Amino acid sequence: MKGLTRIDGGVCAPLKFVAAAATGGIKNPTAERLDLALIYSEIDAVASGTFTLNEIKAAPVRLSQQHIADGDVRAIFANSGNANACTGEVGTRDAIVTVESVAKELKIREDQVAIGSTGVIGLPMPMDRLLAPIPEMVKELSRKAHTDVAKAIMTSDTTHKEIAVAFSVDGVEYKLGGCAKGAGMICPSMATMLCFITTDIGVSKEVLDKSVQRSVAKSFNRITIDGDMSTNDTVIVLANGAAGNELIESEGELLSAFQEALDTVMLELAKSLVRDGERVTKFVTVEVKGASTEDDGRKAAEAVANSALVKASWNGEDPNWGRIIHAVGYSGALLEEECMNISIEGDLACKGGLQADTSMEILRGHVTKEAFTICIDLGMGDASYEVYTSDMSPEYIDFNRSEYAYWKQARKDGLV
Amino acid sequence: MKGLTRIDGGVCAPLKFVAAAATGGIKNPTAERLDLALIYSEIDAVASGTFTLNEIKAAPVRLSQQHIADGDVRAIFANSGNANACTGEVGTRDAIVTVESVAKELKIREDQVAIGSTGVIGLPMPMDRLLAPIPEMVKELSRKAHTDVAKAIMTSDTTHKEIAVAFSVDGVEYKLGGCAKGAGMICPSMATMLCFITTDIGVSKEVLDKSVQRSVAKSFNRITIDGDMSTNDTVIVLANGAAGNELIESEGELLSAFQEALDTVMLELAKSLVRDGERVTKFVTVEVKGASTEDDGRKAAEAVANSALVKASWNGEDPNWGRIIHAVGYSGALLEEECMNISIEGDLACKGGLQADTSMEILRGHVTKEAFTICIDLGMGDASYEVYTSDMSPEYIDFNRSEYAYWKQARKDGLV
Repeated sequence: MKGLTRIDGGVCAPLKFVAAAATGGIKNPTAERLDLALIYSEIDAVASGTFTLNEIKAAPVRLSQQHIADGDVRAIFANSGNANACTGEVGTRDAIVTVESVAKELKIREDQVAIGSTGVIGLPMPMDRLLAPIPEMVKELSRKAHTDVAKAIMTSDTTHKEIAVAFSVDGVEYKLGGCAKGAGMICPSMATMLCFITTDIGVSKEVLDKSVQRSVAKSFNRITIDGDMSTNDTVIVLANGAAGNELIESEGELLSAFQEALDTVMLELAKSLVRDGERVTKFVTVEVKGASTEDDGRKAAEAVANSALVKASWNGEDPNWGRIIHAVGYSGALLEEECMNISIEGDLACKGGLQADTSMEILRGHVTKEAFTICIDLGMGDASYEVYTSDMSPEYIDFNRSEYAYWKQARKDGLV
Repeated sequence: MKGLTRIDGGVCAPLKFVAAAATGGIKNPTAERLDLALIYSEIDAVASGTFTLNEIKAAPVRLSQQHIADGDVRAIFANSGNANACTGEVGTRDAIVTVESVAKELKIREDQVAIGSTGVIGLPMPMDRLLAPIPEMVKELSRKAHTDVAKAIMTSDTTHKEIAVAFSVDGVEYKLGGCAKGAGMICPSMATMLCFITTDIGVSKEVLDKSVQRSVAKSFNRITIDGDMSTNDTVIVLANGAAGNELIESEGELLSAFQEALDTVMLELAKSLVRDGERVTKFVTVEVKGASTEDDGRKAAEAVANSALVKASWNGEDPNWGRIIHAVGYSGALLEEECMNISIEGDLACKGGLQADTSMEILRGHVTKEAFTICIDLGMGDASYEVYTSDMSPEYIDFNRSEYAYWKQARKDGLV
């Protein structure tokens, strides 16, 4: 394998992928921002995906899950501004109509279309505004629209997120591209995370499913901003084989190289969601080692990453290990106080359950940085786990206090 | 049984209980506030208690658990300002020395003394300041000091919490008194909840243990402020039999009446902790019904009560059911979206998973009140569960941002 390199082009970097974006006015009919996105493989593709584990699943999630299970999805249509979640039978019908419209314009089967929605929960989708731009979007499909697509799926994100990479095996070049949007795990009653990845490698559905599960487990399943899990979280990967390799059906050098590239793309996008979390000022890696099992490591890491008090202390640039040890204490992980060490950027803050003698100024210096790593060594075994998280700011709570005015207007407009 | 009546006297209301409070200067040697408390039964007593499930347990918790297990504790000594948690062998020795000093002054056995500490985690206890006032406190024991005791255990609490009740069965009057302190589940790296209850009923250790477990399950185990569980949570009940009844050893009218009184005392104190939570502006009862099991009801209620986004919306007086349904969705409780109703103060906000047609103004009116009830009917079965919680305010995060200055001073003073 020739090393992984960063390239331009986002989701249009891989061969035979094109895209288009448009302004539908989904959340606000008078706003000028892009809110519709279409990603399309000009040749047949294999698809895989993972979806929210929330029992309350938005209509587009349920429909896309079915189509992805069939395996040959080649188009993704997405909107921001409305999640089409908690919208009942109307929402289900709206999702179906959307898929029908996209399929008709692209002249492909309906089950070759996946859809994703992100935005307000509980409001019906404004279908006229969603459907009207589709014919024009299909006409405009091009390799230039990748950044517009990344922008069109944003909600309370402050920047768009896209990435593309290339690698070579046996003289053949392969490319992957991706875009994602996040913000809060949900932003004001919004249903959050979308990630779309394209690649021109040829890979069987079965192998792609395994690769996607592996990468998601190490990336999107390792991030937490506010501990809330949305109704719309969606990761979809399309692989169209345009690079010309023999279809990957088993282990080998090519699959290893592809897995590494997919891991990189997903991890970078996942981390960028945390960095752009709502009113976030710190990017924190919580690393647990010395756990007796990986699941214990996960419990400890997630308890720390989701503790409001720990997150408040990070916001205050306080190198506070007392709150960390107490969160580990209630995590359910096997531990002995005397065996636990906690370090910040490699310097011990707590040794054997007690204050270590590193100077306060050194520890303080570490947490004043924009990004730092907390390492918790449980001293109970060999398992480890890592999560990526953020601080929680007074501004986060303030930002999420109320969308009452928005809903009142929606009621006035006869939308609910 | 003659109905339960409120009486004065707090922990000194039951016969043969006396108390004393003093200023030790535990957290701050120059501060004038009460921070030491002693509660004492003048005759032998039976004791029961429940303690934090956090694996990181403070030294006084571990020692008191042993003494309570033996069953005949008759004195409780408590301090605020320092939790004696994460203090290693020094902390264990300090707890033992404290018990020895109290026992010696009271002329009782060491295993008849329980202790409780609340305050900063990880700093060694200033033992000179803790021990010096004990002889004088023992001399001053009286039935008047109940409110001072309730005040002495406060940390970031804004008001002291005490209660006393009386009831009669077969012409004999029985009394219960209690005090508690809370604030955040932990306040700035403080280890929080203490509750001490006295009664003059005569009851066997075995029966008392069961009664205490039952009452705690319906009160202190039903409250959540910020989802964090402290290293020091302690509930201790002393029963000295001074009322003169034949020792309760089995079910019957007297035990039922006592259970009801104990339930009332604990529930009132538990609710008062939520009302006085750090920077709390709302008291919210989250009631789940129609759950397929009680455990499902608990999961759903706790997910809602601990969601930062739900709590932020309550702070903003936003009657937002979208965030509630999404929290229920990831709670792990069995549900079907179409079967779920959510009401606020009895008015439907969400019906069958969709926006109900109650006017926004009516729902908004309910959540502008200081206390309101959210009822989630899962429509899946007959089980129910209820928790008591609060909003989360920007001020809560701000309040908990940093105790760095405090620690830096402690380091300068040679305390760590």
